Amino acid sequence: MGYQKPKGTADILPGESDQWQLVEKTARDVFARYQFKEIRTPLFESYDVFSRSSGDTSDIVSKEMYDFMDKGDRHIALRPEGTAGVVRAFVENKLYGPEHQKPYKVYYMGPMFRYERPQSGRQRQFHQIGVESFGSESPAVDVEVISMAMRLLREFKITDLKLAINTLGDAASRAAYHEALVNYLEPHFDELSDDSKVRLHKNPLRVLDSKDAKDQEIVKDAPVILDYLTDEAKVHFNTVKTLLESLNIPYEVDTEMVRGLDYYNHTIFEIMTNNKVLGRGYTTVLAGGRYNGLVEQLGGPDMPGVGFALGVERLLLLMNAQNSDLVAAPVLDAYVVGIGAETSAITLHLVESLREAGLTADRDYLDRKPKAQFKTANKLNAQFVVTIGESELADKTAHVKDMTSGVEITVPLTMLEADFAAVKNELKAQEENA
Amino acid sequence: MGYQKPKGTADILPGESDQWQLVEKTARDVFARYQFKEIRTPLFESYDVFSRSSGDTSDIVSKEMYDFMDKGDRHIALRPEGTAGVVRAFVENKLYGPEHQKPYKVYYMGPMFRYERPQSGRQRQFHQIGVESFGSESPAVDVEVISMAMRLLREFKITDLKLAINTLGDAASRAAYHEALVNYLEPHFDELSDDSKVRLHKNPLRVLDSKDAKDQEIVKDAPVILDYLTDEAKVHFNTVKTLLESLNIPYEVDTEMVRGLDYYNHTIFEIMTNNKVLGRGYTTVLAGGRYNGLVEQLGGPDMPGVGFALGVERLLLLMNAQNSDLVAAPVLDAYVVGIGAETSAITLHLVESLREAGLTADRDYLDRKPKAQFKTANKLNAQFVVTIGESELADKTAHVKDMTSGVEITVPLTMLEADFAAVKNELKAQEENA
Repeated sequence: MGYQKPKGTADILPGESDQWQLVEKTARDVFARYQFKEIRTPLFESYDVFSRSSGDTSDIVSKEMYDFMDKGDRHIALRPEGTAGVVRAFVENKLYGPEHQKPYKVYYMGPMFRYERPQSGRQRQFHQIGVESFGSESPAVDVEVISMAMRLLREFKITDLKLAINTLGDAASRAAYHEALVNYLEPHFDELSDDSKVRLHKNPLRVLDSKDAKDQEIVKDAPVILDYLTDEAKVHFNTVKTLLESLNIPYEVDTEMVRGLDYYNHTIFEIMTNNKVLGRGYTTVLAGGRYNGLVEQLGGPDMPGVGFALGVERLLLLMNAQNSDLVAAPVLDAYVVGIGAETSAITLHLVESLREAGLTADRDYLDRKPKAQFKTANKLNAQFVVTIGESELADKTAHVKDMTSGVEITVPLTMLEADFAAVKNELKAQEENA
Repeated sequence: MGYQKPKGTADILPGESDQWQLVEKTARDVFARYQFKEIRTPLFESYDVFSRSSGDTSDIVSKEMYDFMDKGDRHIALRPEGTAGVVRAFVENKLYGPEHQKPYKVYYMGPMFRYERPQSGRQRQFHQIGVESFGSESPAVDVEVISMAMRLLREFKITDLKLAINTLGDAASRAAYHEALVNYLEPHFDELSDDSKVRLHKNPLRVLDSKDAKDQEIVKDAPVILDYLTDEAKVHFNTVKTLLESLNIPYEVDTEMVRGLDYYNHTIFEIMTNNKVLGRGYTTVLAGGRYNGLVEQLGGPDMPGVGFALGVERLLLLMNAQNSDLVAAPVLDAYVVGIGAETSAITLHLVESLREAGLTADRDYLDRKPKAQFKTANKLNAQFVVTIGESELADKTAHVKDMTSGVEITVPLTMLEADFAAVKNELKAQEENA
């Protein structure tokens, strides 16, 4: 009988994996330019790390977590997102200490897990690339992170992007807005969806985020956070806007934007596309914001943070919809054809010598006829085809063909094994003499 | 209150992560030379995939699996090793089909999970790099894979390695040996450990592997598989040895070697070190072998395979014990010092321009005094320090210092932003004139 991958997971096969590698390499390169360094945290954490950071009422914690008891009866969960684990590691390893450069800038990339209905671009095991910058209140950091996000997507050759920003203000702004929002929503209590009824007192901002049509109708006339900002929060947000303008980064302010996680404050942002491959209308490609309370919430000192994350599956859908030739077609440097079983040891020795010299090289391992081997060399897009038959075996030579120029020469095996550059030069010389 | 990472897991922090990246990049490069391509399978699979492939009596399945019921009541398990998932993907995606080049060569790298007592180099979340080559019976493939493994460890600058090989023969050899072994062990039944009693009839080879002192005493005089090989299995093993010799790869035959997983046959091998950082005596760094029945066992056609895996944590312990300078010290291309709060917008614009040009660049985000900023530039090993103060702001210029030569110049901001190469040339010219 056959086995299947678990529902909501995917196999990334040779061919596809090239593009994943390209995405990761590009991200590492962009992050390095900004001095973000990689951090890797465990794939699972104590359940509490996520429930404490994301908020008990978030969909992630209440419905979508892969949590279980381990054999030592610990309640653990596969990570549903990257920030909580990074903050846990930041606190546990005392990276907030003065011996560490601030802002302390890290990035992560890897699998995340949410038990939700699988759909295009949304898997149960999905992959995120994200960054966190700890230790500075400066609005210039918000803008650095946003600018880096825009640059990253530009490097992926993604166009038609829209940057939407909003502010959730500081604690005092949120408290004032919280009160105003509850006062507005309470008279509508009976009309709200069940989810929103629960959230109304626990976390009224999440009601703004509801996908329920009736909720959305009610929310339309709700008070707006921008009217409840403290002077300090206003200055922060205005500086963010000014700095974005000075960097020529266009943006829109979207006062209805609320992130799905509870830990954000001040600047939040989403980079969106209206490419239909990700759904109808504008949908989010990358999202992030500031979370000044989260480090303290997870047991650390009062230290600010700002970050973003993007989903790799959705990014790839978008990349493939917009451009298809980012990954170069693979080339094989040399394919070695052996004619007759008695050439096996010598062709193995030869491919090994070429690999030793840093070349990509291969041969047949199925005892196939020369014709089939030559066909494979073509299929693999081999630059050079080396052939060893009975006469070459006797002479200790090999026949080499440059598949681009068509030039062919016979050279001593020792030369081929010790100095492939010399063989290439000889082929070049023949080509010019022809 | 603070949170801790789960027992048996590790945070890989900036600094350490550089070495992980180096290991992965080196492995990708070596594998590419051999035309192995990356495959990524899910972090969890149906429990059956592992119990079917590893064998119910293996320690992994019987004691160490992170298995649980998901919210849809499916019995799933975090992968304890890489081969089973790769074979499941190979079968499910019909990669055995004739349209795919054979041998079909893949590699994987990533986290694996076993609930065992954490100890040095053995974590509950640990990381493996492995390869699989499907579709050829040829002993040349066994040797290609072994040679690639040796090359990989050489690239990591690991010395003092010992290659041990053995054969488990084909089905007929194993059946004959199985019978001989059971006949030998049965009279000792009462003296065997409880684990070995269970294994005696289910999988007597695993008794050879027992760590129990009394078991080991009994096993010492057990029959040896080499005496039960069929002619075909003998030829296979002898060819492996001959080809290893032709590639000048030294080896030892270890007839007591049995791999912990049930699915091996013919050639098995371990690359071992006696470096004490991994434990007393010779311990395994990398291990693998041939598993001709596994593809069929997981629902595919009768198709042979051979592969290996290595534990990254153990590899890093060994690399660090043997050599410490594989990772180059990080260099920052440019650090931009801003004097006065009013320079914030212009320094942000400048670092962004430098990053746009592909340079690594950074500035301060803590409103610190110039002295502290210069100190940071030194700490970050900056090649160039760019300073913008009140007078530069007015003149639209910046002061640039080459920290190696000590040469300093003042240049227009526009030049700095548009053409950093020209700035470097001018610094060079000044240096030569001095």
